[in-house]
Amino acid sequence: MLRSHTCGELRKAHLGQTVTISGWVQGMRDKGSLLWIDLRDRYGITQITIETENASTELVTIARSLGREFVISVTGKVTERYSKSDKIETGDIEINPAKITVLNSAITPPFTIEDETDGGDDIRMRYRYLDLRRNTVRKNLELRHRIAIETRNYLDKLNFLEVETPVLIKSTPEGARDFVVPSRMNPGEFYALPQSPQTFKQLLMVGGFDRYYQIVKCFRDEDLRADRQPEFTQIDCEMAFVEQEDILNTFEGMVRHLFKSVKGIDIPALTRMTYADAMKFYGNDKPDIRFEMTFIELNYLVKGKDFKVFDDAQLVVGICAKGAAEYTRKQLDELTEFVKRPQVGATGLVYARYNADGTIKSSVDKFYNEDELKKWAIAFNAEPGDLIMILAGEEHKTRKALSELRLEMGTRLGLRDKSKFACHWVIDFPLLEWSGETSRWHAMHHAFTSPKPEDIPLLDSNPGAVRANAYDLVINGVEIGGGSIRIFNKEMQAKMFELLGFTKEDAQSQFGFLMNAFEYGAPPHGGIALGFDRLCSLFGGADGIRDFIAFPKNNSGRDVMIDSPSIIAEEQLKELNIKLSHQK
Amino acid sequence: MLRSHTCGELRKAHLGQTVTISGWVQGMRDKGSLLWIDLRDRYGITQITIETENASTELVTIARSLGREFVISVTGKVTERYSKSDKIETGDIEINPAKITVLNSAITPPFTIEDETDGGDDIRMRYRYLDLRRNTVRKNLELRHRIAIETRNYLDKLNFLEVETPVLIKSTPEGARDFVVPSRMNPGEFYALPQSPQTFKQLLMVGGFDRYYQIVKCFRDEDLRADRQPEFTQIDCEMAFVEQEDILNTFEGMVRHLFKSVKGIDIPALTRMTYADAMKFYGNDKPDIRFEMTFIELNYLVKGKDFKVFDDAQLVVGICAKGAAEYTRKQLDELTEFVKRPQVGATGLVYARYNADGTIKSSVDKFYNEDELKKWAIAFNAEPGDLIMILAGEEHKTRKALSELRLEMGTRLGLRDKSKFACHWVIDFPLLEWSGETSRWHAMHHAFTSPKPEDIPLLDSNPGAVRANAYDLVINGVEIGGGSIRIFNKEMQAKMFELLGFTKEDAQSQFGFLMNAFEYGAPPHGGIALGFDRLCSLFGGADGIRDFIAFPKNNSGRDVMIDSPSIIAEEQLKELNIKLSHQK
Repeated sequence: MLRSHTCGELRKAHLGQTVTISGWVQGMRDKGSLLWIDLRDRYGITQITIETENASTELVTIARSLGREFVISVTGKVTERYSKSDKIETGDIEINPAKITVLNSAITPPFTIEDETDGGDDIRMRYRYLDLRRNTVRKNLELRHRIAIETRNYLDKLNFLEVETPVLIKSTPEGARDFVVPSRMNPGEFYALPQSPQTFKQLLMVGGFDRYYQIVKCFRDEDLRADRQPEFTQIDCEMAFVEQEDILNTFEGMVRHLFKSVKGIDIPALTRMTYADAMKFYGNDKPDIRFEMTFIELNYLVKGKDFKVFDDAQLVVGICAKGAAEYTRKQLDELTEFVKRPQVGATGLVYARYNADGTIKSSVDKFYNEDELKKWAIAFNAEPGDLIMILAGEEHKTRKALSELRLEMGTRLGLRDKSKFACHWVIDFPLLEWSGETSRWHAMHHAFTSPKPEDIPLLDSNPGAVRANAYDLVINGVEIGGGSIRIFNKEMQAKMFELLGFTKEDAQSQFGFLMNAFEYGAPPHGGIALGFDRLCSLFGGADGIRDFIAFPKNNSGRDVMIDSPSIIAEEQLKELNIKLSHQK
Repeated sequence: MLRSHTCGELRKAHLGQTVTISGWVQGMRDKGSLLWIDLRDRYGITQITIETENASTELVTIARSLGREFVISVTGKVTERYSKSDKIETGDIEINPAKITVLNSAITPPFTIEDETDGGDDIRMRYRYLDLRRNTVRKNLELRHRIAIETRNYLDKLNFLEVETPVLIKSTPEGARDFVVPSRMNPGEFYALPQSPQTFKQLLMVGGFDRYYQIVKCFRDEDLRADRQPEFTQIDCEMAFVEQEDILNTFEGMVRHLFKSVKGIDIPALTRMTYADAMKFYGNDKPDIRFEMTFIELNYLVKGKDFKVFDDAQLVVGICAKGAAEYTRKQLDELTEFVKRPQVGATGLVYARYNADGTIKSSVDKFYNEDELKKWAIAFNAEPGDLIMILAGEEHKTRKALSELRLEMGTRLGLRDKSKFACHWVIDFPLLEWSGETSRWHAMHHAFTSPKPEDIPLLDSNPGAVRANAYDLVINGVEIGGGSIRIFNKEMQAKMFELLGFTKEDAQSQFGFLMNAFEYGAPPHGGIALGFDRLCSLFGGADGIRDFIAFPKNNSGRDVMIDSPSIIAEEQLKELNIKLSHQK
């Protein structure tokens, strides 16, 4: 037996017991007559204390030979500490060892195994197995485990069945790029890895499974932006015999259950916002509603005063930052630089300070007198002490830029506390969006999303105006999940493929199985998929997902620990009936 | 709202309530004045009864327009049935509909959606979404869900953490063929899909995670025998600071928990058998111990009596089939044919009938007189009425053949009842096995399995005699799981790779990350992986795994429903820097 207890388990109740614990040497102190070892495992740290004069020479020799991260097993008596520690849960006790066994030695780790490590990102990833020993990383993965368990508990209670869908599926050109897998047994043919189990979960509904879920790996061969992973995990769900309302309620329940059971937080009922309102008031389809600072449109107020920037603009729109009137010139210049960044894309920033003394001074005093500025203040419901910030230009671009400014101001004003959670639904997404690049309509959610019945007549006349039964779950400005009520009728599905530019033949060869399935009695159905990595990161109060994944890949899609991807043997290529077209 | 209740939910307690249920039309009977519809969903069947004279013309018209598998929604009052049915749980009630809505029509299914279907395997797979509507298939997948939940419950309670390991990993030549995935971002390089998360779970142990599990998809590009799938699911587990005993106890607990919680069966404590005994007494490393019929070796009894077959044989060995002395000549001829099949491989069958009258008659009376046959009977502990069956030849081949005969006799004598479960451990597997084909040692379990400490000295002198700390979980003659205590020391791992014929360079390039990890304080660890598909099939009392997988592939690795694998676009190949070397 290598341990009777863990390193996090012993308390005063164990005093006098002889125990065996095993773990890693976190640190040592040697004062000559007294020698301390901090022994660490997943559950905590226990102090081992050796009075060298009362211990055997052998024991002391072994103890003095230990180094950081050595793996040892210690048998000894639990005694009360002379100076207790309230920093660790085992702080009342220590162990006086009768025996120490070195289970494995360790060379010096390339970075310190502590909460605040000196290891950079690259080296931490290369030695991920050491990084995983750090409390911070381990706690993230424990949190992930807990969220998965509670997700399953919730859904299992509601009669959802966890069904595994295949990983080796079929490549389809819609959406992002697929990862593909050459089939040795079917020369010249390929499987694809799923971007989502979308068609399979719909077929489960056709198959009468009525409530499905899966916590499932999905794959996208995208050019990786920071914090995207080629393989990622979704909580994937689908329900039959439901309307949008049923799905929103079911998954609002899940989100509330997760907050309550995992974080002990009672979140209020989720509010709902249409996509149109989200764009109008936040310039963003996933607004962070931890703070207000909503958009106020000003065309009606500011035009015709000879300020060319406003006169020429399609849209003049602003926000009011509470209590920011005191911002210095330097701060305002910074914000101007911020909005002019290419990623934000505004041409400049107009501001007006509503000073504490009731006066208003703007950056465009040349064109607008104080009376006019007062009207601005009224429009913004501004009070003395507030700062009004205004952008102008082409509508879509300007809203997007103001959304970035709003988030920046939220951050600067401390309104985006990571321990506060604001969850809501964005609903009534457009069905389609026009792509200038490909000169065709693209599905805003995906090709299987149903239009709102009342908008169906617009499908031919004005496709861009058709709203979908589609919804996103947004938490703290992050899109955590999205879903829709699906098409369940062959003709409507064919029509949708046609709108998306599929030929009849392509639609049939790629999705014929689904459209055929719709002929055999498909029930009304819909679902949702939640980004599990992102949800975990949000629950953990972090920005990135990487430390919520045990073995993540870097931005080139590479696992630097195992050094993958890698070349494979010529013989493997031959068996797979492929050749490299690129020579290294 | 599309339903207030399911089709399996309504009872007498609901009498008088107005409810809405939705589902598929299972069947209809039209007696003119009375019209019945059986409405089915995942939860059951509810009878809808229409008295045509009291119903609206519209309702009757709709009802008469329905066909099998139409999807409808019915609103009406729950009433007591005139003639109750005890075949279905809703058999006390029926619904008198006020409204029937056709949610979707259905064309005639290609096979009947009933427990006993007229659909063959091929057509069922092509229309798997219809096959899934059948009770039998759905119950299998519900069982699978339940086993997964209970597995997680058990392991979660024991502080196991579910950790997702990556799917895009690195190809290694050891073991079966890998499926590979070309990397677009790293031209000429490939990921591989995991055959198991072996190295990652070991790295989790090095990372201090100490108790890991995952229900995880694994992949093997093998030539598919019947009932093998290219993607399959494992319950994958690993523990640190353990010895073999700890693992056997932990997973014995899991198996008992699953039988108890899922099937309500208390199974007895698991027995243990060494590999050597399994081979000696059953000729099989996964013996079915629902019945005895163990091997009795006869060399000492039968040699030197001028019977050349026995005299020339390396091994003469037999079994005694209780109560089979009455077998007819035809039955015995069948068994002789059975053992002579190429898959079984014996040259012939010798038998001796211990007749009810106490006489013994054998197929080799020419060489053995009744006194000698009596000695056989004593060796087998045979009683009047028993049938002794004996094979002879090269030892390994003969044991294998006798094992097949034993299983065949077990089946013929009704000793392999699928509702009875005999679970046990086979332990002390050899570390290595010699392959004549490759003229080198292969790992019997895998390259990471540790030799028994006491056998380490034999590694150089007699590798074949080295036993491993490896164990299999066997249920009803099926290997449900296997595992081992792992090597956790760099030198021993290097030695193992050397024995397996790796060059130092190959070992380093493929498994360097693992051997390096062992230098930073690797704890003793070990684990197990259970075949989840097989476990489900066994719990379901079935022979095959296919109907315990929602969307299985056929023996050519093809999903005939979605028609995958398939060709991909030239452009995709180009982006991936590969070409086909095979022209279709």
